[in-house]
Amino acid sequence: MPKRPIGSVPYVYPVPIVLVGALVDGRPNYATVGDCAIAGIRPAVVVVSLGETHHTTRGIVEHGTFSVNVPRTADLALVDYFGQVSGREIDKSELVRSAFGELETAPMILTCPVSLECLVVNECSVEHRRIFIGSVVQAHVDEAFLDEDGRVARLGELDPILYALDNRYYRIGPAIGVGYEEADKLCR
Amino acid sequence: MPKRPIGSVPYVYPVPIVLVGALVDGRPNYATVGDCAIAGIRPAVVVVSLGETHHTTRGIVEHGTFSVNVPRTADLALVDYFGQVSGREIDKSELVRSAFGELETAPMILTCPVSLECLVVNECSVEHRRIFIGSVVQAHVDEAFLDEDGRVARLGELDPILYALDNRYYRIGPAIGVGYEEADKLCR
Repeated sequence: MPKRPIGSVPYVYPVPIVLVGALVDGRPNYATVGDCAIAGIRPAVVVVSLGETHHTTRGIVEHGTFSVNVPRTADLALVDYFGQVSGREIDKSELVRSAFGELETAPMILTCPVSLECLVVNECSVEHRRIFIGSVVQAHVDEAFLDEDGRVARLGELDPILYALDNRYYRIGPAIGVGYEEADKLCR
Repeated sequence: MPKRPIGSVPYVYPVPIVLVGALVDGRPNYATVGDCAIAGIRPAVVVVSLGETHHTTRGIVEHGTFSVNVPRTADLALVDYFGQVSGREIDKSELVRSAFGELETAPMILTCPVSLECLVVNECSVEHRRIFIGSVVQAHVDEAFLDEDGRVARLGELDPILYALDNRYYRIGPAIGVGYEEADKLCR
């Protein structure tokens, strides 16, 4: 059917849900964010976008560091909660166990299977949104998901959370193809 | 199990696959990109990241506009192909039907159920990566997926493509919860 204009809506879907960590007033704080992307593999760069008044944003600006933590569907209730309440109202560091890596000011959630330590290398603003470009200094992955060579081997079991603009969380579905091989099926 | 450092890897997963469109030398061109995120809903902002030498990048820089097109799993072979070959080698405008909206220099793929017309409002570089921040001027959605009020109603049927750093494409799985309601299940 033909397409219809529906206004100014950023309809990219679904998006991965992550918990962005920062050190605020000396305490780890985490914000649930659907506004996160890979911006490059080599160099390893990620982008996160937060509101300028968010508690986490203050820690990122102060220290120039943040973490990206990938939660699992089993954590959904806590993830949803962390997206509703501000670190100004509750001390989120009491609800999860944190660890620090090389950067020392980018707290990571111990129970998330993947955490990335990031150094802010650039940033920009669009109205009240602060967009941080982070160089990934170190990725930390639960050993249960690594093979003998230290590569992530059991992606299906990582069980990440997706979100879409219908305000629903989704699970990842089955693999449907291999990169750089599917084009062979094209009738040219 | 404990986590192990695995180096500088941007392990955000999975990511939505989109086709970024631009007008290059007067012709629509499209690049398959997994480096795309929502950066805000109000204002509606998206981020895309491309290599600075990519053919599509030249069109974005020249016109200050681009499109984000969300393909379906049925398009997987073509999507994979568009990620392998450059618009310098083939004329991609011959392989898909394009349409233009308000911006006139942001070609959109007719058969993708969702296309966003974007105006570059900011950009930055990290080494050879160009990161464009786009204001969504207009979202165009296939009428088959809209309800009577013009809202996207049948997200499951949109059937988008996901990708992860295990170099596999994935389908979206089932909905597992509703935003801002799951936290009620938390034992506090």
